[in-house]
Amino acid sequence: MDEPGERRLKVAVVGASGYTGSELVRILLGHPQAEFALLTAGSNAGRCFSELHPQFRGVVDTVLADNTALADAELDYIFLALPHRVSMDFVAGHDLERTPVIDLSGDFRLADAATYEDWYEHAHSCPALLDSAAYGMSELNRERIRDARLVANPGCYPTSAILPLTPLLSAGLIETVGIIIDSKSGVSGAGNKPKPNLHFPQLHGNFSAYGLATHRHTPEIEQALGRAAGGDVALQFTPHLLPVSRGILSTIYARPKHGVDQQAIDDALAEAYSTEQFIRLRKAPPSLADVRGSNFCDIHAKLDGRSGNLIIVSAIDNLVKGAAGQAVQNMNIMAGLPEGSGLGQVALSP
Amino acid sequence: MDEPGERRLKVAVVGASGYTGSELVRILLGHPQAEFALLTAGSNAGRCFSELHPQFRGVVDTVLADNTALADAELDYIFLALPHRVSMDFVAGHDLERTPVIDLSGDFRLADAATYEDWYEHAHSCPALLDSAAYGMSELNRERIRDARLVANPGCYPTSAILPLTPLLSAGLIETVGIIIDSKSGVSGAGNKPKPNLHFPQLHGNFSAYGLATHRHTPEIEQALGRAAGGDVALQFTPHLLPVSRGILSTIYARPKHGVDQQAIDDALAEAYSTEQFIRLRKAPPSLADVRGSNFCDIHAKLDGRSGNLIIVSAIDNLVKGAAGQAVQNMNIMAGLPEGSGLGQVALSP
Amino acid sequence: MDEPGERRLKVAVVGASGYTGSELVRILLGHPQAEFALLTAGSNAGRCFSELHPQFRGVVDTVLADNTALADAELDYIFLALPHRVSMDFVAGHDLERTPVIDLSGDFRLADAATYEDWYEHAHSCPALLDSAAYGMSELNRERIRDARLVANPGCYPTSAILPLTPLLSAGLIETVGIIIDSKSGVSGAGNKPKPNLHFPQLHGNFSAYGLATHRHTPEIEQALGRAAGGDVALQFTPHLLPVSRGILSTIYARPKHGVDQQAIDDALAEAYSTEQFIRLRKAPPSLADVRGSNFCDIHAKLDGRSGNLIIVSAIDNLVKGAAGQAVQNMNIMAGLPEGSGLGQVALSP
Amino acid sequence: MDEPGERRLKVAVVGASGYTGSELVRILLGHPQAEFALLTAGSNAGRCFSELHPQFRGVVDTVLADNTALADAELDYIFLALPHRVSMDFVAGHDLERTPVIDLSGDFRLADAATYEDWYEHAHSCPALLDSAAYGMSELNRERIRDARLVANPGCYPTSAILPLTPLLSAGLIETVGIIIDSKSGVSGAGNKPKPNLHFPQLHGNFSAYGLATHRHTPEIEQALGRAAGGDVALQFTPHLLPVSRGILSTIYARPKHGVDQQAIDDALAEAYSTEQFIRLRKAPPSLADVRGSNFCDIHAKLDGRSGNLIIVSAIDNLVKGAAGQAVQNMNIMAGLPEGSGLGQVALSP
Repeated sequence: MDEPGERRLKVAVVGASGYTGSELVRILLGHPQAEFALLTAGSNAGRCFSELHPQFRGVVDTVLADNTALADAELDYIFLALPHRVSMDFVAGHDLERTPVIDLSGDFRLADAATYEDWYEHAHSCPALLDSAAYGMSELNRERIRDARLVANPGCYPTSAILPLTPLLSAGLIETVGIIIDSKSGVSGAGNKPKPNLHFPQLHGNFSAYGLATHRHTPEIEQALGRAAGGDVALQFTPHLLPVSRGILSTIYARPKHGVDQQAIDDALAEAYSTEQFIRLRKAPPSLADVRGSNFCDIHAKLDGRSGNLIIVSAIDNLVKGAAGQAVQNMNIMAGLPEGSGLGQVALSP
Repeated sequence: MDEPGERRLKVAVVGASGYTGSELVRILLGHPQAEFALLTAGSNAGRCFSELHPQFRGVVDTVLADNTALADAELDYIFLALPHRVSMDFVAGHDLERTPVIDLSGDFRLADAATYEDWYEHAHSCPALLDSAAYGMSELNRERIRDARLVANPGCYPTSAILPLTPLLSAGLIETVGIIIDSKSGVSGAGNKPKPNLHFPQLHGNFSAYGLATHRHTPEIEQALGRAAGGDVALQFTPHLLPVSRGILSTIYARPKHGVDQQAIDDALAEAYSTEQFIRLRKAPPSLADVRGSNFCDIHAKLDGRSGNLIIVSAIDNLVKGAAGQAVQNMNIMAGLPEGSGLGQVALSP
Repeated sequence: MDEPGERRLKVAVVGASGYTGSELVRILLGHPQAEFALLTAGSNAGRCFSELHPQFRGVVDTVLADNTALADAELDYIFLALPHRVSMDFVAGHDLERTPVIDLSGDFRLADAATYEDWYEHAHSCPALLDSAAYGMSELNRERIRDARLVANPGCYPTSAILPLTPLLSAGLIETVGIIIDSKSGVSGAGNKPKPNLHFPQLHGNFSAYGLATHRHTPEIEQALGRAAGGDVALQFTPHLLPVSRGILSTIYARPKHGVDQQAIDDALAEAYSTEQFIRLRKAPPSLADVRGSNFCDIHAKLDGRSGNLIIVSAIDNLVKGAAGQAVQNMNIMAGLPEGSGLGQVALSP
Repeated sequence: MDEPGERRLKVAVVGASGYTGSELVRILLGHPQAEFALLTAGSNAGRCFSELHPQFRGVVDTVLADNTALADAELDYIFLALPHRVSMDFVAGHDLERTPVIDLSGDFRLADAATYEDWYEHAHSCPALLDSAAYGMSELNRERIRDARLVANPGCYPTSAILPLTPLLSAGLIETVGIIIDSKSGVSGAGNKPKPNLHFPQLHGNFSAYGLATHRHTPEIEQALGRAAGGDVALQFTPHLLPVSRGILSTIYARPKHGVDQQAIDDALAEAYSTEQFIRLRKAPPSLADVRGSNFCDIHAKLDGRSGNLIIVSAIDNLVKGAAGQAVQNMNIMAGLPEGSGLGQVALSP
């Protein structure tokens, strides 16, 4: 589908065994100006990609290489779909000047190495790179992403929270204290490794909260919102596990400043996002089905006159806008391509 | 299983076509001192109970009567499993002195007729009865329930919120402002009538918020918490629809008063509930599977030292502790029976 | 994405309120040589397409026309996503010479009007058209589809059964008696109209058979297999309702003729399908997730040496290969386009 | 609840960490004449039962013993909820004269050690005991169960197939060849150990067949049906994995002998089962929800006049009638108690 004469970008997906890796491949398959040139894996190297992900049978039967294959490959971009810690070690040994990296782990999202150590409970192996990593929230940080050699792709939960809150904090419409983010995620966010708490009979018909007060996405959200507010933001983030495969819905509570009304909220969101391709301001609360498989972030904001609270409901697909989709969006920005290239799918619903 | 010579209570279930009605029958089947003497229905009168609820085939093949049959029946208690509005009209025409009523609708839960009209959007047909109706939160209102002729069985969402918050407000440990109740319910709470938004393909793999700032359980919770606090309580209640059949999990945020620590919270909850048969104080957040099919309310409370917020997670089965189970518990209280009679089942899990 | 100077096909989707209608729109959105020029509805005419299907917000906000709008539209193809009976009445009043029709209902699938009346329990309104309608099983009937003005798009269950069985019957490898097709379908196959048996709490965690011995897809399958076998085929078809939104998995049992071994089965399937883009012959049984959202039909065949039975497992997405996807595939055939245009998506999994 | 002066049976559950173990405890909790005196585990010994199964918090907080504790315990019955192979080794070292055993594994179900070795792929450690083990299909083998010291509790799939087919084969109403059993099971049947194919995102919204032609329940079914028919029975058994936690629905196809009509089928089933407490002959196909959490086996049989096939649909809860419930039913038979003691629960539905 590419124009004759136009060179397609060559990309590698490092860590193609997992859900994020397979989602990157799914999106890149439909990308008109890019293609994957190399898929790598750790212990699964040597196996066929479509053996691990049978939905790709007959379409992507590529053998997974190990990471040494990267040395010889001519690549435009590398996507890292690795666990945190493994990811920073990869970057530490990689020449960013040769090939820019979009890292989907949490390793380069926090600007402060000490904060990283507090929440991830181990030291950072290349703190010197933290400054140069661009935080990859596409709509909010395009300028830095465009020129970055290392993009820290945002966490799934943070994406659902930072997108709606940033314009309101930037405009000074809500208080910086008392923000509560009650998030509910599908299970694919926890990865594809079997665990007792992710065993089907434990989750079917079930629902629970986890990581109360301790989830690592908390400082990531606080950092981004602090930048928006121009000062510290204190918030409560509570994740929950939904008995679905995909999607994050966050219900967010904030206190509007004195005199702020619904119109002011709507205006600030519209000013920030009305021309954005992947952000939809909704008049009714969105549902996960509206965004499943798509790169959209749907946002509804309602000021409750009775209680005085602002209630925001946002919905994303954790594997797309919350991971692989936003990563491709960032690559598009870096490469000077139309930002929506390869990302045109609407949700698969029902 | 009853003792020789002991008379079993005769009860009627009015509105046995719905989920609450069938759940009352399920529980009463295992009750050692009570039995249903009459099952009634509206448009389904004349049909077999087990035709509507095939799980009862061969066990309860009783024909559903219409409500005129109540006039001739000798009954000890009547359970009303009717929609609101229909319920108050029934009570208006019923002689409470003859037979006490446990009403599972919302019609008698709000003490103030004007508040009822505001939230239910129609007038109350028997406001004079509101004063005499006992709010049937079993653990918190036993004295009034014991002597009542009309018990307003609590709403499902309110049960999950009022039980954990009441001891903390009574003891003055948390602020009366800024309480946020983010609740997630299984679909059976919406009844058994097919609707577009409850159609299987709309909900499977899906999740959404609804009734933002407008749900009728809001004033019910505020009323109960106001009584506990001895003053007005302003709160935000947001319900969500989970893709499961049963269960409510509420995540509740409150501000502890100055100097209140985890121990004080734990002590207040323990003092209120450590001897309660159906309330379990949990060291980890409960999940819906822990309570499915049972009359338990499981509660976990965690004070986040970093944010200063108190986070409470509570779980109930909306059809049991949130409806039919608590109704039977209330009947036990009224009849002077052991409060747990017929309610001994643990959750069906997985 | 179309080439400069190339005209894009203009198509109408008649009946865009339902699941099949929205799926056609989803697929056409990504079609490089076609676009929808008109979306119509019955009682929903005048409403916005994306109001009914919120996943399309901001992408397809087209107002649904009523069917009178078809008279003035310049169209290349019309897709009918209507209930049976409504569909044949539409065709009866439509000029097929002006615009060819791809009908997704069951109205033109059976060549014999009497058989139609037996199974659909009402008379056919335009039996004279039955002869000219091409049965739209793309891989098996390309020649007729190419020149047809009326294509009867196959049923979802029949697609899953006819594709694997046809090559085996054509080659005389299996007996024409004793074929058993045990099929399991997601709920979207039953449409988007709420019904008591499709109410979420009735289906969640549940599973059942329905339509034993009476399902209308039975004669459709028998007709196609009879053509393949060159004689009557007697079969048993039993549908079941799975608690999932999408997908059909059929487990099929047949008796190989004397001397037929696994190799002969494999060879016949490979000969028929090894070059087909949308049929994947699998070495292990496929699962619904492998095909969800895609136009693939995955087939696994295993001859059990012990029992002598041939067991076939096939999987499709009922809304794609079983409906909208195959309809677009047929349009591509009719228009002389690459058969896979617009149909390149792999499954959304997990 | 027991009568004064009546001694309650003391039982042990060996292997209480798994789903079958916890289900035994759930049922025994409501048993009026029995109680568990000992719960044991392997690697989980020393942990609290309710830590593994939090639905039992506050109800069964017993510490799990290791199996050495059995030596000192005064027990009336031992339930073995162990994996096959582990189970027979336990029995080999146990004195059956001292305490009778009800074994829920597959180790003693096959009378022939060679058949066992063929399908389980290892030798049997105590083949001498196979003769004395009673096959625990309660309704069909009461006489042998009553006097047995070792009961081989049937497999879940076999229970769903043997119960409906036995009366028909015994009466000579159906052919002994060509029987097809297409079974669909909830995931709890695969145990509580996390595995990649049982990981939540792999199963949610998914469905697949497995174990084609090789499942170990095949010879168990053939053995029981052979006894009923008085000769060899050849059948095809295909299991599938449903995205639900509990329940097995089997769709069974058989060929009636010449002259057999619906009435003859109905009569044979009624003669066998009309007085049975746990078998319900249904006029419409049952669904999993009708039996979930109960000890019922629901059966529907329909002779399709057109095809000549008999179609049977049966439904059980795999953990109750398919495992723990039938085990307790067998204990009741052995102890001379009412056969339904402790098993009165109807399904939890919705």
